[in-house]
Formats: sequence, C-alpha cells, structure tokens
Amino acid sequence: MKSYRKELWFETKSRREYINITPDVEECINESGIKEGMVLVNAMHITASVFINDDESGLLHDFEVWLEKLAPEKPHSQYKHNGFEDNADGHLKRSIMGREVVVAVTEGQLDFGPWEQIFYGEFDGKRRKRVLVKIIGE
Amino acid sequence: MKSYRKELWFETKSRREYINITPDVEECINESGIKEGMVLVNAMHITASVFINDDESGLLHDFEVWLEKLAPEKPHSQYKHNGFEDNADGHLKRSIMGREVVVAVTEGQLDFGPWEQIFYGEFDGKRRKRVLVKIIGE
Amino acid sequence: MKSYRKELWFETKSRREYINITPDVEECINESGIKEGMVLVNAMHITASVFINDDESGLLHDFEVWLEKLAPEKPHSQYKHNGFEDNADGHLKRSIMGREVVVAVTEGQLDFGPWEQIFYGEFDGKRRKRVLVKIIGE
Repeated sequence: MKSYRKELWFETKSRREYINITPDVEECINESGIKEGMVLVNAMHITASVFINDDESGLLHDFEVWLEKLAPEKPHSQYKHNGFEDNADGHLKRSIMGREVVVAVTEGQLDFGPWEQIFYGEFDGKRRKRVLVKIIGE
Repeated sequence: MKSYRKELWFETKSRREYINITPDVEECINESGIKEGMVLVNAMHITASVFINDDESGLLHDFEVWLEKLAPEKPHSQYKHNGFEDNADGHLKRSIMGREVVVAVTEGQLDFGPWEQIFYGEFDGKRRKRVLVKIIGE
Repeated sequence: MKSYRKELWFETKSRREYINITPDVEECINESGIKEGMVLVNAMHITASVFINDDESGLLHDFEVWLEKLAPEKPHSQYKHNGFEDNADGHLKRSIMGREVVVAVTEGQLDFGPWEQIFYGEFDGKRRKRVLVKIIGE
C-alpha cells in the first residue's frame, strides 16, 4: 500500500468564499502515482468545509443565501461561542456542508460523475487556513 | 491491497424518492472477495445523496416534509440556479443528507449497527442516475 | 495492509449530549500499530452522530439550541415516525451533524488541524450505544 499527503493553503479576501480545488486534488493524485484507492480531502479548520457540488455561479450564490438563513452570522450576540470570537455561524455552516469528502481513485483519476467538483468552503476567512489531501492505495 | 468498483443505476418515477440499496452493496462486497477494508458508496450526481438511516416508512415521510421545510422546491424562482433548471432545491437537500458514506468491511460483511441501512436519496429524479461503489482492502 | 477494529460504548445520562472521544480514537491508533492510513469513526446507531468540531462549551450549547430550531424534538406528534417511538428528531439532527468522520493517520497520529476534536453526538440517549473505529493502512 502506498500513501501520499499534501496540505493546500488558502487565504480568502472575504469572510465567506467557495473555491474549486478539483485541479489541485487531481495534481495530488498524479504526484502520488496511486492508480486504485481512495482520496480523503478535509478542511483542517473547524469553520471551513470541503464538499462536492456543481461549479455554477447561481448555485454558489444560492448556497450563500441559504446558509445565512439556516445559520445567520448576525447578530453575533445570539451565539454563546461569540464571547471572544464572532465566528459561531461558521461552525454551524460547516456542519451543514461537511468537513470532508472521500473520493474513489480509479485508473489514476478522480472517479467522478459528470458534474462533480470539489470545493473548499470558507466561512471565516481573511487568514491562512489549510486543507489536507491524503491518498491511500496502489 | 485489492480494489473493486461498480456502478449502480437508478431511474425513479417521482422527483424525490428513497431507495434502500443495502442488498446491492452487500452483493458488491461478496463479489469483491474483500474481507477487511472500507467501502465507499457515493452519489455520482449532485442532486442525489447516499446516506444511512432507518428503513421505516414514517421516518422517510418525515425526511420529505423536513427537507421541504429547510430547502423548499417552490417557488423555483427563489433560486438563482434555476435560470435554465428547476433543481436548485435538490442541490441543497443533498447537502444536508450528504453525498457519500464510508462503511467498514469486517469478515467480509458490512460492519453495521442493528438498524443501519444504506439509502439512495433522489432529489431530482425521473432520469437515469448512478451511484458508485468502491471497495479497498484485503 | 493492516486493519483494526474496536467498538466504543456510551450510555449518556441525558437525551442529548456531546462527548469528546479524541483520546479514545488516539488510543485505537496506538493499539493498531498503523502508521499511514485512514481511520473511520462512525455511530453504529441512527440517532447518534460522530463529527469534528471545537471543544468549546459555548459552541456545544449553540449546537443544542440550533439543532432544536432546525429539527425540534417537540411536539412528538409532528413526526410520523413517532407512532411507537419519540425520537424522530434524533434521526433528523444526526442527518445534519453526520454519521461518520474519516481522518488521515500520518506517522502513527491523527492528522489534525489545530482545533479539530472528534465528538460523539448523542440525540436519543439514556441507553447503551456504540461507535465503531476501523483503521486500515500500514
């Protein structure tokens, strides 16, 4: 069994942002030399998410509006976590969108359906944060 | 390390539907000959879900009502994604229910608690769509 | 490839509770002798969750309030599942928080960001329930 590990770093300009990281993960698979296995891609921070969905700007806008409805940022005082911080909503938003994805690696490629794309979802940005890519297989 | 891959195909009669696919996944494990490892089961489409819960008709009804409350289908015009499509709600519903499950394979079986069942959750059906089963182990 | 399996048992005093199980999972990794691989940690019951977030009491309180807003326990009669049971809300809450986490094992350790902690989330407690830890790797 082979294994491979890489960290991807991000620093978004706004508090919330969605970044398509599919090409970065594909590059990791190429570097790993692994042909059959699984790749885990996870946020290493607890106010960020890695998820799979469509790379369509209307939909990404819909996510922003919808997540603000289900877990609004403001008023900050509505959350007990926000004593010294203001990012409780980011913890909740990431709980809906998920911390990680596991994707099959087949014949040295991401084994994807027609529209699947991997996103880094940032819910408390403007600072350096990381995603972990771990691949195991042969 | 061994690996195994299979696609399961579905075409539901209604827009939303839940299908218990546990027997299909068990058959994949048998075919693979893998005794110890992990099985990944994921929707290959971004308006569908694979999740684990109870196979109880009342609960499946509750999921339908609850998801419609959290991410209503209509009016279609409430979502920017719905310019040429009408399935934005399916993208959101699947985000709550999850794209994939990873299940342990132990002694050649799904390593499950007493009531765990694997479901395909369709949120934009009436067309052919796929689930991927990937197993790695020995 | 090596594999390792262990069940962790819980019996909470209240209906809902969050328990930090990071030390238990670390002990499993030590016992397994696996240095590079992946660990799957999943609830074996369908009204419980395993998730990763911050071990901060204010945030855990926020989760309780927020999940009660998105999937309220009462009135029990609002859910069809609650004919002979009263735990439909637990099935819904666990759907938001997730059944499982997959974490990279690197150099014999949980490969974690600075604040990541693994929690058992109980949504229908006061009885003995289990979490499965399965590790594969080398």
